[in-house]
Amino acid sequence: MQVKAYAAQSAGGELAPFDYELGAIQSGDVDIEVAYCGMCHSDLSMLDNEWGASEYPIVPGHEVVGQIVAVGDNVTHLKPGDRVGLGWHAGYCGACESCLGGDHNLCADAQGTIVGRHGGFASHVRAQATSVVKLPDGLDLAKAGPLFCGGVTVYNPLKQFGIEPTARVGVIGIGGLGHLALQFLRAWGCEVTAFTSSASKHEEALTLGAHDTLNSRDSEALAAAAGRFDLLLSTVNVSLDWPSYLQTLRPKGRLHLVGATLEPLSIPVFSLLPAQRSVSASPVGSPATIAQMLDFAARHDILPQVEEFPIEQVNEAIQHLRDGKARYRVVLKVGG
Amino acid sequence: MQVKAYAAQSAGGELAPFDYELGAIQSGDVDIEVAYCGMCHSDLSMLDNEWGASEYPIVPGHEVVGQIVAVGDNVTHLKPGDRVGLGWHAGYCGACESCLGGDHNLCADAQGTIVGRHGGFASHVRAQATSVVKLPDGLDLAKAGPLFCGGVTVYNPLKQFGIEPTARVGVIGIGGLGHLALQFLRAWGCEVTAFTSSASKHEEALTLGAHDTLNSRDSEALAAAAGRFDLLLSTVNVSLDWPSYLQTLRPKGRLHLVGATLEPLSIPVFSLLPAQRSVSASPVGSPATIAQMLDFAARHDILPQVEEFPIEQVNEAIQHLRDGKARYRVVLKVGG
Repeated sequence: MQVKAYAAQSAGGELAPFDYELGAIQSGDVDIEVAYCGMCHSDLSMLDNEWGASEYPIVPGHEVVGQIVAVGDNVTHLKPGDRVGLGWHAGYCGACESCLGGDHNLCADAQGTIVGRHGGFASHVRAQATSVVKLPDGLDLAKAGPLFCGGVTVYNPLKQFGIEPTARVGVIGIGGLGHLALQFLRAWGCEVTAFTSSASKHEEALTLGAHDTLNSRDSEALAAAAGRFDLLLSTVNVSLDWPSYLQTLRPKGRLHLVGATLEPLSIPVFSLLPAQRSVSASPVGSPATIAQMLDFAARHDILPQVEEFPIEQVNEAIQHLRDGKARYRVVLKVGG
Repeated sequence: MQVKAYAAQSAGGELAPFDYELGAIQSGDVDIEVAYCGMCHSDLSMLDNEWGASEYPIVPGHEVVGQIVAVGDNVTHLKPGDRVGLGWHAGYCGACESCLGGDHNLCADAQGTIVGRHGGFASHVRAQATSVVKLPDGLDLAKAGPLFCGGVTVYNPLKQFGIEPTARVGVIGIGGLGHLALQFLRAWGCEVTAFTSSASKHEEALTLGAHDTLNSRDSEALAAAAGRFDLLLSTVNVSLDWPSYLQTLRPKGRLHLVGATLEPLSIPVFSLLPAQRSVSASPVGSPATIAQMLDFAARHDILPQVEEFPIEQVNEAIQHLRDGKARYRVVLKVGG
């Protein structure tokens, strides 16, 4: 099958039409006809080879929704016509302790959808069936894509750490991930605070589910929040004054990062020890967690706020995201 | 009552006999006649005012065992003659969420036994009854003291994080705390590895309960242990190459510090994120955890290896500890 994709030929390059041939489908794989594909900051990081893991030509896109058009042998849970989605991972080893334990997203040999493979800025994507999850009935195809990476990335910690509905949670950074985190946490029953330095996002954060906002550039406001939060969920990829944030955590509180800050965290032990605090980070989520997250999102009407671009305007869409203008997630309309 | 203690008059000073008057006993308090008192690195930190929290004259000592000689009103669970111990905390607010939730050791208003109070290098110590725990029958008074600070500090994380007997655990630093951690972990059913750079401690670590040792100065040995441990328990108070240690953790693994390293930890997010690792720290343990730890220690014959000094030689004992010669815990014989 001939795939009509958009690819960059070098780090940071413009995307241009790029056709490639998809060989015979293998056992365990499925082919998805792409309807929409969200655009994530990780697409830019990979496009720019920021993590040193990129291969060119690169076809970005790992927040894919569409329908199954072909299945390989031994695929039993998906069939042509199924509405599905695909996120950061397009395959897992299936045999390691993480995979066998249901933590496929922690598999050391997991295959990234856009790492050494071609992603979803394309007419079709192939992936291991295990990594592809059916959409619940009624979930809007034009908006569902970002749930598969941004959505599950902020939902997963709630499951992993058994966050209770009584928890007070602060969300740092109200963007593609943060605006979904506010919705998930509100539906989860939590007290939700949006940390944002953008005045324009204050009202929007309340609309999205925050009970209140905290100006993260106001050191007095941070100090006044001492000992308040059970969980701080940081979605930013810049360095912050982590000790000041840690002081806003209650005993046994956790600062959890889902943003890939490149500069090492500087953490005084005395910010952790007296109150038994933790610092942690995690990547996306497993297929089972994605499926559960989709059910939860459908039940609670949780969807990203998207700005739709036709795939032919992919470079304009990328620039929009680079400029920090996305409110809150860019989605490319590809097919359907 | 006249208390015969040993105190330093200034930071880092020699200890000398120091008598002070203990006023009428208050409601909720008990007086302990000290039999033995362990010597902890925190005693040196407080003696030297390393944390800026010391008041002089200071009477160190917070690993106290002895017997109750007086109880105030409203003390129902202790009576004169009871064999008891007292650790880092000599009182709690009793009303905060941590106290009410059984996490007294995380009470923001907890009173340190040697912080603004006089400790256990003395004939008697007064403490809030809540902070004083009965010794199980048969536990050796001459060795039990160090369980009340060093012991519970390394035992507590096993409870806090629900460490399972199937876990592989590395103990970093085989000293006063580490040599107890090896014993607790072995009895807990875990696979136990002692990290030590001291060749002389290799055989001793095995005797104490380690299944094997890992030379922490051998970067190749560290690299070969990639993805091995569920928990790393660091008892040292020096900076290590944390990213190299983090790489030895399995998915969802935790680096937990009970040593008060003064230099901030430098933690790359990419050491945490792909495998959902955590970094945390905690202080001592609650009275309920101390009681449970004592039962567990008694059932499994877990005791510190101690070197006993008469209290009259307290300065020699301090120098012995300062010189890093303690194998593994110094205990002062006071009364008993």
